[in-house]
Amino acid sequence: MNLKDYIRSIPNYPKKGILFRDITTLIKDEKAFAETINQIVKKSKKFKVDKIAAIESRGFVFASAVSYLLKKPFIMLRKKNKLPAETFSVDFELEYGTATIEVHKDSIEQNDSVLIIDDLIATGGTAEAAAKLVEMSGGNVSAFIFAINLFDLNGSDNLAKKGYHVENLMDFPGH
Amino acid sequence: MNLKDYIRSIPNYPKKGILFRDITTLIKDEKAFAETINQIVKKSKKFKVDKIAAIESRGFVFASAVSYLLKKPFIMLRKKNKLPAETFSVDFELEYGTATIEVHKDSIEQNDSVLIIDDLIATGGTAEAAAKLVEMSGGNVSAFIFAINLFDLNGSDNLAKKGYHVENLMDFPGH
Repeated sequence: MNLKDYIRSIPNYPKKGILFRDITTLIKDEKAFAETINQIVKKSKKFKVDKIAAIESRGFVFASAVSYLLKKPFIMLRKKNKLPAETFSVDFELEYGTATIEVHKDSIEQNDSVLIIDDLIATGGTAEAAAKLVEMSGGNVSAFIFAINLFDLNGSDNLAKKGYHVENLMDFPGH
Repeated sequence: MNLKDYIRSIPNYPKKGILFRDITTLIKDEKAFAETINQIVKKSKKFKVDKIAAIESRGFVFASAVSYLLKKPFIMLRKKNKLPAETFSVDFELEYGTATIEVHKDSIEQNDSVLIIDDLIATGGTAEAAAKLVEMSGGNVSAFIFAINLFDLNGSDNLAKKGYHVENLMDFPGH
């Protein structure tokens, strides 16, 4: 099964010049969804994983099943003002403006090895912010796993250059 | 294991008078998370389920693992302007103002029996909008399963009065 066959490409979304890679066509096929989860689980076995952190909200779509199968805690990295208790918070740059992601202060403990999961990596701004959250919490990033890597936007390569382990299931151009 | 012991209650969040029920303390305990998923899977066995629809974004946290275990398609019901292809769209009332949820037009087929999963039901406005999306798509709602029912807000009872099957894992007061 080639998972790439299940990704729908939508030109000029969310704006002109962007070729959007849509996972809804993958996850609505139960075999492709299961294969995606199984491949993430397999890739995770190379790393020490104490906890799994997922980036809101499509990261949750893959990380929940992976957490269940690996029997590991599930930590949500959420957008600003969504978490009710005390948080660590990291601002990061988007193409236009900035965004913020947060994690509860009691989610990650000192020296926890944390696997970060998201559906897609583009320029990697969100991923770097996620790594900062883990590190501010006293943990370390054991690896990143992304379903889709938009390779020509270099986010995956940039994380690797900074010393992070990065695994991707599928490579697509971002334009 | 009593799952209710893993829910954190936060007074006056997001605003004065609301007692917020926080699932992050449940999902970061791998045993409590697995037990929650197993209970949802068990409850789902009473119903015909062709597809699983989850409400963004905490619904994804439970529905992903359930979809994997039941080997059923995973459909995202998302907030406005998040889905890239053609959508059905339902507006609904919140305490202040309105919100919108959407589903891709190609997600649910005629006569599909759809299990709707979310983390929590309060007054049930979002849940009713989710049911409308399924029905606009030509499907029918086989059941709703919620991890938490804020019973004094009557959302669960109101859905049952309208003829829907509703299952809740935990009951809490909403104030």
